Amino acid sequence: MGPHFGAVSPYLQAPEPASPAGFASVTRPDESVRAAARERQDRLTKPAGSLGRLEELGVWVAACQGQCPPLPFSRPRIVIFAGDHGIAARGVSAYPSEVTAQMVTNFLAGGAAINVLAETAGATVRVVDMSVDAAETPDVAGKFKVRRGSGSIDTEDALTADEVAAAIAAGKAIADEEVDAGADLLVAGDMGIGNTTPAAVLIAALTGAEPVAVVGRGTGIDDRTWMRKTAAIRDALRRARPVSADPVALLRTVAGADITAMAAFLAQAAVRRTPVILDGVICGAAALVAAELAPGASDWWVAGHRSAEPAHTLVLEQLDLKPLLEFDMRLGEGSGAAAAIPLLSAAVRILAEMATFTDAGVSGPAEE
Amino acid sequence: MGPHFGAVSPYLQAPEPASPAGFASVTRPDESVRAAARERQDRLTKPAGSLGRLEELGVWVAACQGQCPPLPFSRPRIVIFAGDHGIAARGVSAYPSEVTAQMVTNFLAGGAAINVLAETAGATVRVVDMSVDAAETPDVAGKFKVRRGSGSIDTEDALTADEVAAAIAAGKAIADEEVDAGADLLVAGDMGIGNTTPAAVLIAALTGAEPVAVVGRGTGIDDRTWMRKTAAIRDALRRARPVSADPVALLRTVAGADITAMAAFLAQAAVRRTPVILDGVICGAAALVAAELAPGASDWWVAGHRSAEPAHTLVLEQLDLKPLLEFDMRLGEGSGAAAAIPLLSAAVRILAEMATFTDAGVSGPAEE
Repeated sequence: MGPHFGAVSPYLQAPEPASPAGFASVTRPDESVRAAARERQDRLTKPAGSLGRLEELGVWVAACQGQCPPLPFSRPRIVIFAGDHGIAARGVSAYPSEVTAQMVTNFLAGGAAINVLAETAGATVRVVDMSVDAAETPDVAGKFKVRRGSGSIDTEDALTADEVAAAIAAGKAIADEEVDAGADLLVAGDMGIGNTTPAAVLIAALTGAEPVAVVGRGTGIDDRTWMRKTAAIRDALRRARPVSADPVALLRTVAGADITAMAAFLAQAAVRRTPVILDGVICGAAALVAAELAPGASDWWVAGHRSAEPAHTLVLEQLDLKPLLEFDMRLGEGSGAAAAIPLLSAAVRILAEMATFTDAGVSGPAEE
Repeated sequence: MGPHFGAVSPYLQAPEPASPAGFASVTRPDESVRAAARERQDRLTKPAGSLGRLEELGVWVAACQGQCPPLPFSRPRIVIFAGDHGIAARGVSAYPSEVTAQMVTNFLAGGAAINVLAETAGATVRVVDMSVDAAETPDVAGKFKVRRGSGSIDTEDALTADEVAAAIAAGKAIADEEVDAGADLLVAGDMGIGNTTPAAVLIAALTGAEPVAVVGRGTGIDDRTWMRKTAAIRDALRRARPVSADPVALLRTVAGADITAMAAFLAQAAVRRTPVILDGVICGAAALVAAELAPGASDWWVAGHRSAEPAHTLVLEQLDLKPLLEFDMRLGEGSGAAAAIPLLSAAVRILAEMATFTDAGVSGPAEE
């Protein structure tokens, strides 16, 4: 975007900081529509505020859409970023790496949890192979694939400089494609054996937490695996801390192409004024980086759930987001966000479809 | 139900206590199906337990249905029990009593929050006028109506002995009608200006709480109204405590025909082996009584949400139920339960429709 000329003298405003990865600046949801939506909530046939969080959610979507009443979502879209992680070879997961490619096939066949949750919520699923350690799945458009797997981040960089740039461009392009195709609600899901390790490192690097505060049981690891995973996080974190102020360098050092593309996708969704439901710890790690890539992006996000992974709570605190669900989920795939889509849909329809006191001929509160 | 003859000598078992209002005994959800459902969850393509509460919910519905995989809900049904309360004349609510009848009209026109939430969740709404202080609404089948309003419970009984019996019979008959018509998931909603006052009294009587612990802001009352309401609760509670061990006498003394019918409906739903999502504080008060009318009924319930009303938390603790949503809702109508229906639907479909590891050719956890 070029410079914009408003009513306020540019000399009175701090210059927009250039995004470290070339993202356009994020604008805010529409404050005047937000006010109009709040006022409308109070005219609907219910005591003011009595639908609690559902009222807030409807107001937020109206402000995101820039119109009140808001329109029901017509194309909620879940994009799963799949990739393998070199660190898995260190034995940090309960599952072998080949499960990543197998699960991509399962997504395409419709047999995974995210497929069922998407269908229940009226959403559709897209799978992007960013860095699965397998030959390209013929059914997944392979044009974004950056490499097979990533460097083992305890001892080497996850990506080269060219690879991180390609992954950022991919995430940005995917968000643009989805918004251009009409997506009006986005979810970023993950699939990648070993991916809670880089996520934990990113979260520790960006919140200042110690390894033991971010390590979790992932897919369900035993105590010996937990010790290996904690050591891997410690070693990778030592490599991450020096570059933690530079989000692109941080992604290159410890993220992998899948999480990098997800971060760029979340940043670009905000640039494109599209609301997002965040998922759990992988999405949360990407979101922390996205908030650095595109300051203000978190105004466009709501947290779908609180994951059972301890690092996710650090993300929610840092982004000041209150999760919609607390279901002890820890699957990934976007499942916790997808489970919350019907709540957001209900909130929108409440604001759009309920009768007002005047329409329904219902009396308001008694005057004292 | 007649006596049943099992493998265990009847001399070793305590006799079933006769229900105080003639409810048949409540059987438990099917434990062998519950075990089969747990086993199936572990064969689906996700780490064991990784869908957290969604897995538990699916298992519970399977046990309620007595089959695994469970069937998606085909007829989720919301029954709203409408009634006025004599105590409203003491100035305990922000709204005038005529709003009860106006809102019944609004429900029938489809303009209320519960209509929108029901439609979003694929559920339908039935309104029953138990004791609205108005001539019968022509569109509401009036065959269950017991009286207009209720006694002012601070100084007189809510109902006569005949009226409480009629209201119990109504709630039981309505549950039977709904189950016979194919309802496979039930929600009990409320509409009645002033109804948080009798609900608070019932909850205090059955949990031993003091008036100040159960009084809430209801539809949004000011401080002077709050003082009047607290005094009304104190006075009614003085009348309720002596009969708190007798659920029918308690309903007669302080409930009203709407809450009485709701309690009987919840009890009979459990007798009829039908899962229920509980709503907020009014439904919670009715549920506490239902658990006395039909011991074991709470095995058939899940809590849809935690209401903003403080007394509701006492209900959840007493029934040992963990709410699905914590959205600070306080509308009633069944709204908090209806908002949770899609979560239960998703849980059922997860268990019924996901691929197993074997089906999908996905590897399980690595052997150490």
